[in-house]
Formats: sequence, structure tokens, C-alpha cells
Amino acid sequence: MARWEPGARERLQAAALELFATQGFEQTTAAEIAESVGLTERTFFRHFSDKREVLFYGQQDFLQAFVDGLDTAPSEASPLEVIASALQAVASLFPDERRPYARTRQSVIDQNPALRERELHKLAGLASTAAAALRARGIAEPAATLAAESGATVFGIAFAQWIREGERRSLPDIASDVLHELVSLSRAGTRSATVTGPRR
Amino acid sequence: MARWEPGARERLQAAALELFATQGFEQTTAAEIAESVGLTERTFFRHFSDKREVLFYGQQDFLQAFVDGLDTAPSEASPLEVIASALQAVASLFPDERRPYARTRQSVIDQNPALRERELHKLAGLASTAAAALRARGIAEPAATLAAESGATVFGIAFAQWIREGERRSLPDIASDVLHELVSLSRAGTRSATVTGPRR
Repeated sequence: MARWEPGARERLQAAALELFATQGFEQTTAAEIAESVGLTERTFFRHFSDKREVLFYGQQDFLQAFVDGLDTAPSEASPLEVIASALQAVASLFPDERRPYARTRQSVIDQNPALRERELHKLAGLASTAAAALRARGIAEPAATLAAESGATVFGIAFAQWIREGERRSLPDIASDVLHELVSLSRAGTRSATVTGPRR
Repeated sequence: MARWEPGARERLQAAALELFATQGFEQTTAAEIAESVGLTERTFFRHFSDKREVLFYGQQDFLQAFVDGLDTAPSEASPLEVIASALQAVASLFPDERRPYARTRQSVIDQNPALRERELHKLAGLASTAAAALRARGIAEPAATLAAESGATVFGIAFAQWIREGERRSLPDIASDVLHELVSLSRAGTRSATVTGPRR
């Protein structure tokens, strides 16, 4: 058994993203990623099942933060207040220093249909996990699914805005603004523009 | 050039769905579908590019109905009122006599991951088409994307409920109920249950 390399995962992640961004995801091999930071392919595969996993590492923490956030909402909270609590918990996983990494990661994903697919599934997974957690709190259908899907939509829009060039607000602040917009949708003449372009 | 077969498309669709449901989507060939209604494989391919298309025929009409519905909303309508108008237009494409067909179609789709994927893309396409149409009406982001995604979510939930065994309400009525639930999400204690199970 090879010895454990301290910080190997983070070095592999940074190196992988750099290679994906400069030479393309398809053109980059696991061996190449490992070599670029002086590690072996075998070490790579102790940390990630394949090169795609480098980009989706931490998804379980992401879902868990969302569910933990749901749980901290008071029992009398409205479905949307529960979602607001979950959004704040998950958004706080992305401090501003992660913004450059997130931006580069997104540009790699945007260029590859299979990775875009996987990213869509991640948000769909967030919605179905959240719906189950809301039902477990006693929120009936269709409110549970509606609130959960809305939460995933708000997160997707807020995240896309957070990594936009020139954006300075934190992800929790943007998520809060977008959720507020959702509540305002039933008001006529919604013309404010905290987000300035299409999501896709 | 072979002569045009009147009603061939509808006969092929009915035959295909019957075969997909009884012997499985994967196990059914285009030639078999055509033969079962006394038509040639060549006739099949004049109507559908492949057997999958039989299940997704009419998607353009579906998107068009949604956009036409958006256009009929008065210019001072709130984003959600615009979506309500679009939902009514698209839901009216599914009269109650289509319910048995829709139910069988869904059971075929549910059993095949690639078909489920395609169905998800259909709803995602609905959302992005709707968002573009809302922006064209002067609705700013993120309201346009939020309203469009909410419209797609409401349609998905309403449709799943419409084809549930025992459901008697029309799709336009269910869509209207689900949209009303969406507006109520910010109210505490949402415990009504017009839809009685998880979406997925």
C-alpha cells in the first residue's frame, strides 16, 4: 500500500482544472493530471474514480448542507422560508475565494455536453432530495416538490450570477435576492434586474 | 414514390405505443411497428426519423402553444400571470381522451433511462423557450428565468398528477391548482394536498 500523500486531493483538483481549462477535458488523462503534480496515476485513482469526478467532488457535502439547512428552519416556517434557510446553508459552502475556481470549472463544464448533463442531474438531485426532506417535515404535495424545485432553480440562477465576470456580491446575498424575486413574480411590472442575462 | 397513406401517422403511433408497452421499447423495431398495421418500414420512416420520435412527436406544437399562450397575456400582466396564460394554452393540448395514451406513454418512458433523459430535456427546452419569450416581453432577469422555470415545474407536476390512476380533473384545472400552490408557498402552514405523492 502506497503511503498517503498529504494535500494530494487538492493538488490533483487544482492541476486537473488547469489542464482541463488549457488543453480541454477530453484531451486530458488521469495519468497526466497526476504527473503534473509529481504523483502517480494510482494515487489519482485512490482519490477519484475518474477524471470527471474531480469536477463533481463534494456533491454529497453539497446535498447534506442543503438538508441540514432545511432542518434548522423553525417548524412553523413556510415552505419558502425553509428553502431560504437551506439556500443560505448551501451558499455558505462557496466563499468568495472559491469564485475563480468555480468560474473556471463552469467554463470547462459548459464546453462538454456530458458534463453539462451531469451538472443538470446534480441540480435535479438537489430538488428531489429537498422534496423528500420537505415531505418529511410534513409539507404536503405539491407544495414540497414546488418549493424544492424552486430552491434548485434559485440556486442555479444565483450561482450563474455569482460567477459572472464583475459580480462582487457573495453567493448567500445573491441567493437571497433571487429568492426575493421569486416571491415577487406574482406582482405586475417586475422589471428589476439583479441578474442581467439569460441563465442558459 | 409510394402513395400517401391517410391516417398512417396515427396508426403507427398507436401500434408503436402498444408494442412498446407490451414487449418493451428496446425490443421493438420500426419494421415491426409498421408491419403490425400493414405498412412498410419505408412508410414508417417517412413519418418518424426513428422509433423514439414516435413518443416525442408534436414537441414543436407543444412549445408553440406555450409561446402563443404567453403572447395572449395582457402587457400589464405579472410574470406569473403570463405563465398562467401559457400553461392554460399548453394544457388544453391534452384533452381527457388523451389521458390513457399519455399514461401508457409515461410508463414506457419511465422504464427507459434514455427516454427519461429526453423527457427531461423537453421540459428544460420549454423553460428556456419560455424565458426567451418573457425577456422579449420586457421582463428582466432573473424574473424571466424564474417564471419560466416555475412554469415548467408546474407543468411537470400537473401532468404527473393528471395521468395518475383515479385522477378525474382536467389538465388545465390541475395546472391552475398547482400554480395557485406555488403562489401560496410563502404562506406558513401549507398543508393542502391536491397532489398526493412525490413527483419522482
